[in-house]
Amino acid sequence: MRPEPLPLFALDLTGTFAFGLNGALTAVRAVRLDLVGVVVLGMITALGGGFIRDVLIDSLPPATLLDWRYYTLAAVGGLLAFALSRHLRRIEAAITVLDAIGLSIFAVIGANKALDSGLGVAPSILLGVVTAVGGGTIRDTLVREIPTVLRTGLYAVPALAGAALTVLFLRADVYGLPAALGAAAVCFLIRVLGLRYRLNVPEPPETSSREKAPRGTDS
Amino acid sequence: MRPEPLPLFALDLTGTFAFGLNGALTAVRAVRLDLVGVVVLGMITALGGGFIRDVLIDSLPPATLLDWRYYTLAAVGGLLAFALSRHLRRIEAAITVLDAIGLSIFAVIGANKALDSGLGVAPSILLGVVTAVGGGTIRDTLVREIPTVLRTGLYAVPALAGAALTVLFLRADVYGLPAALGAAAVCFLIRVLGLRYRLNVPEPPETSSREKAPRGTDS
Amino acid sequence: MRPEPLPLFALDLTGTFAFGLNGALTAVRAVRLDLVGVVVLGMITALGGGFIRDVLIDSLPPATLLDWRYYTLAAVGGLLAFALSRHLRRIEAAITVLDAIGLSIFAVIGANKALDSGLGVAPSILLGVVTAVGGGTIRDTLVREIPTVLRTGLYAVPALAGAALTVLFLRADVYGLPAALGAAAVCFLIRVLGLRYRLNVPEPPETSSREKAPRGTDS
Repeated sequence: MRPEPLPLFALDLTGTFAFGLNGALTAVRAVRLDLVGVVVLGMITALGGGFIRDVLIDSLPPATLLDWRYYTLAAVGGLLAFALSRHLRRIEAAITVLDAIGLSIFAVIGANKALDSGLGVAPSILLGVVTAVGGGTIRDTLVREIPTVLRTGLYAVPALAGAALTVLFLRADVYGLPAALGAAAVCFLIRVLGLRYRLNVPEPPETSSREKAPRGTDS
Repeated sequence: MRPEPLPLFALDLTGTFAFGLNGALTAVRAVRLDLVGVVVLGMITALGGGFIRDVLIDSLPPATLLDWRYYTLAAVGGLLAFALSRHLRRIEAAITVLDAIGLSIFAVIGANKALDSGLGVAPSILLGVVTAVGGGTIRDTLVREIPTVLRTGLYAVPALAGAALTVLFLRADVYGLPAALGAAAVCFLIRVLGLRYRLNVPEPPETSSREKAPRGTDS
Repeated sequence: MRPEPLPLFALDLTGTFAFGLNGALTAVRAVRLDLVGVVVLGMITALGGGFIRDVLIDSLPPATLLDWRYYTLAAVGGLLAFALSRHLRRIEAAITVLDAIGLSIFAVIGANKALDSGLGVAPSILLGVVTAVGGGTIRDTLVREIPTVLRTGLYAVPALAGAALTVLFLRADVYGLPAALGAAAVCFLIRVLGLRYRLNVPEPPETSSREKAPRGTDS
């Protein structure tokens, strides 16, 4: 694997920080965990997707454990979110935007690292999506929500678009910070527009025979 | 690791496809996720058990990411289940049978791969069980159900039987497609008969002192 | 990695056994799973933290799969807990103490193994915490409880103290069974005193704007 250029490394750190803030704010909102719980959920959200990616591409120990800037930024994001949560009027909006930022950056970086590790086109795109949605999926599972990636199609789809564009740029040899930012922007836009206009992908048809089945899952 | 013979590879793909269908149908039934959610849960169910196995036997990146037929079949299974769910009268029965097929095949293939990787008899059987129940356990956790492997003994037990038979056949040097199918059939039969006749393993005794404790959570 | 000295190996087995008992008792209390479910949850709790650590430090297959004493003790702990649960008057207290024992030992052993594997000081401490809380977090997630590590600060904090002391002792070259027991005792004491006196770390401030937001879990 070639050494990561600085601008892309900075981009990766930005995603880590965004997910650290996001996970911590989710903890505050969803279950009002204490300081440690908030920071722990922030760190898991920030580092989880990269852990899964690095395990699957056999790049262990994960980069995020070897370089102190990753786990420190994840922890700082969590602490900051805890401190700010009092003053944050629109905590819901902040959670959503930070999640979209992390999603977009991690889709690009994840696909990039997977392709660099020697995987083919399709698995690299798949791993971009896994990196993007992995941390948030662990986050949601730990606070007992159905993961966003399952609930709404316009979460995996923008990640897929960002990861696919990244692989395209890499194959066309035009990848670099501008291309990465472009791919991330496409992902971000699809995600945010989807939320804004409540776009959705098709849902399974309701059939009368199943209508009375217990839908629910939770206590 | 010796190259996998074609018939066993085809068997592995069959299990992947069955779990892809099963996970997607579970998504439709349990929480009515949208198209992407359904396909994602199908893929996670189909690929999850193998991921855990390949991580634990240090065979990374996982075979299911390196060979396009695995993840494609998992996705196709998910898409197909989405399309079919409208016409499926007995969705519950389909879920159960597909799960039993995936369980049986993955118990055999998982034990086989673990032994091939150099693990001993007991850990290979254990990894057969982990491969068999892993994807379904992630599936259940993500849709917030208590995993089947915890709720009913006749889920781990048949997987254990299938995995143990596989290791026995391999050690006796009579392993091949017929032996693999035989071991899978034993697992499948125990699972299905257990469901049919509501067989069960012992439950912990109820003591009066705990009777009023909150039982928590599930149906 | 240097071969593990016998006393530390025995300590590791003790933690495994404690977590095996603990996970199985949790299963009995929380959801009254059957015999297999109880043993499975015991084994997952006992082996889960070590699995995550060994994956992240790239020591695969995990030691707990290569040495039969680990998985056997985990299973025996689960079986024993199932058999004893009837006679256990104070099941809640037993669960808590066994969890504190496992937490303390795994924080020490985890930090030790991470540092031995070549990781730096901070990631080694982090991995000590991950090893300590990992199995319990999977346990709680599978029975659909919010993981202890998120709910209460005085779960990650004692693990952090035990792991940090371990790294300190190792760096000062005074590590051995007495030092390991000392570090584990510090972790154990903080955990138990925290429970006894209901000590806690700060919680996020409640703001009026969020007061009416649904606390619960789902959208």
